[in-house]
Amino acid sequence: MKDQEHRRVISLSPGAFHYRRRVQFAETDLAGIVHFSWYFRYMEEAEHALWRAAGLSIVGDDLHWPRVTAHAEYKRPLRFEDEIDVKVRAGFGRTRIQYGFEIQREHTLVAIGAMSSVCARSERDGQLKTTAIPADVRERLITALR
Amino acid sequence: MKDQEHRRVISLSPGAFHYRRRVQFAETDLAGIVHFSWYFRYMEEAEHALWRAAGLSIVGDDLHWPRVTAHAEYKRPLRFEDEIDVKVRAGFGRTRIQYGFEIQREHTLVAIGAMSSVCARSERDGQLKTTAIPADVRERLITALR
Amino acid sequence: MKDQEHRRVISLSPGAFHYRRRVQFAETDLAGIVHFSWYFRYMEEAEHALWRAAGLSIVGDDLHWPRVTAHAEYKRPLRFEDEIDVKVRAGFGRTRIQYGFEIQREHTLVAIGAMSSVCARSERDGQLKTTAIPADVRERLITALR
Amino acid sequence: MKDQEHRRVISLSPGAFHYRRRVQFAETDLAGIVHFSWYFRYMEEAEHALWRAAGLSIVGDDLHWPRVTAHAEYKRPLRFEDEIDVKVRAGFGRTRIQYGFEIQREHTLVAIGAMSSVCARSERDGQLKTTAIPADVRERLITALR
Repeated sequence: MKDQEHRRVISLSPGAFHYRRRVQFAETDLAGIVHFSWYFRYMEEAEHALWRAAGLSIVGDDLHWPRVTAHAEYKRPLRFEDEIDVKVRAGFGRTRIQYGFEIQREHTLVAIGAMSSVCARSERDGQLKTTAIPADVRERLITALR
Repeated sequence: MKDQEHRRVISLSPGAFHYRRRVQFAETDLAGIVHFSWYFRYMEEAEHALWRAAGLSIVGDDLHWPRVTAHAEYKRPLRFEDEIDVKVRAGFGRTRIQYGFEIQREHTLVAIGAMSSVCARSERDGQLKTTAIPADVRERLITALR
Repeated sequence: MKDQEHRRVISLSPGAFHYRRRVQFAETDLAGIVHFSWYFRYMEEAEHALWRAAGLSIVGDDLHWPRVTAHAEYKRPLRFEDEIDVKVRAGFGRTRIQYGFEIQREHTLVAIGAMSSVCARSERDGQLKTTAIPADVRERLITALR
Repeated sequence: MKDQEHRRVISLSPGAFHYRRRVQFAETDLAGIVHFSWYFRYMEEAEHALWRAAGLSIVGDDLHWPRVTAHAEYKRPLRFEDEIDVKVRAGFGRTRIQYGFEIQREHTLVAIGAMSSVCARSERDGQLKTTAIPADVRERLITALR
């Protein structure tokens, strides 16, 4: 049941949210460009900025949003002090949020990415149990994506 | 041409290489578990350990190996001081290496991942140009994967 | 000679520069607070923002600015989504820049820090050689610190 | 009272513990060398390895060890795939542990550092309260430093 939900394709909502960010020195590596692992943090920062724009926080009282998948395709390098725009889109399953990302530098596509998280609740034994995304959370995020 | 090569499925060679590693404190986040971006660094560390076992270094004189794709699927959380085993496999196209990873903790599968890199050479103008993987590099890696 | 310069106390110029920044998820650790190593990156980001405000970049053609010392004293924890203000001051020796930092969250002092870097030039053999800070760089930074 | 304890100089115990580690790719920056912030993580990894050697974990049931100070002096650069040796020493106040570090690459001193942490206990209101270091913890660490 859980696995079926995980594998089902979730289409993204029509709207998008934009997060701007400057590349910092410690994000580069000896090749002189941003290390590939940092793109995932850029995507996560954009995700959390979307949540704030929706009046929410990913760190809440009783819900958790563990990652299920993360994916990136690298088109062009990023360099120190580049200003980037991370475009976020999102789609909603019953228990899972699917994010799609486009990272641009001056209107040039630098990378695309995708991540998904499930909505989970802490049980009394400390284990996380997948649960349905609250309607309020979904509605607020969709509104912020307009 | 380049795009066709990028999209072609590359099957992995039969052998595997294992890299062992302990989870460090700074790799955890406020959820009490390893941040999802760190799994990509674990995979990269394993890749580079494979290269060393092959008598090679990813940082060489004139060849570069920029990432093209990175992917991870998270099955279970990792915690501070966990000992992990990263199993690396690799497959070789003309210009691209495809890696496959399995991260285990005490024989339990924690995550699977995949990354691909292209072989590139610096041109006089500083641009990187995709080039064929040297036969020597491929042979040494395949030997180390036994 | 070099060591004497390194040990001489450099007094800070009167002005200050402010850099604002939000704490991101990947900067926290399992204790639920920002990992202590991140404060050094906050300080470095503020340093580089100061250089940009001065019309400069720490990554230039022929000068390098390797770190000599870094120091932090932690007063209070920082948490996910906190907004911080990093106040930078700077003082100038012949070859060395001394920075002083105060990190605040809502007018509460969270940490103080200090870092110093020397001005160095690449020699033909690839070695770095300490050199005098160009007057133009010092003047621009002092102006941006007003 | 707390401040006096924080400022009192704590002399280091005679023994030392050694932690070995290889420099990884993501730890380098565009200058081609290890980013200065990583030295603090090398020191912390060595600290936690010392605790494990003492049969302890820094992450325990009810005690916490927040950082009070961190300091580093950089002597020489570190590069990708360098093997380093982090020598740890420690001294004990009533509530505070003082660590001293030397980072070497092939018997060449690369950096020295120092960090201190206080022993703290969670109160019912979630606040941390400084408390005396348990005698058992001190004894085990001193034994592991032999």
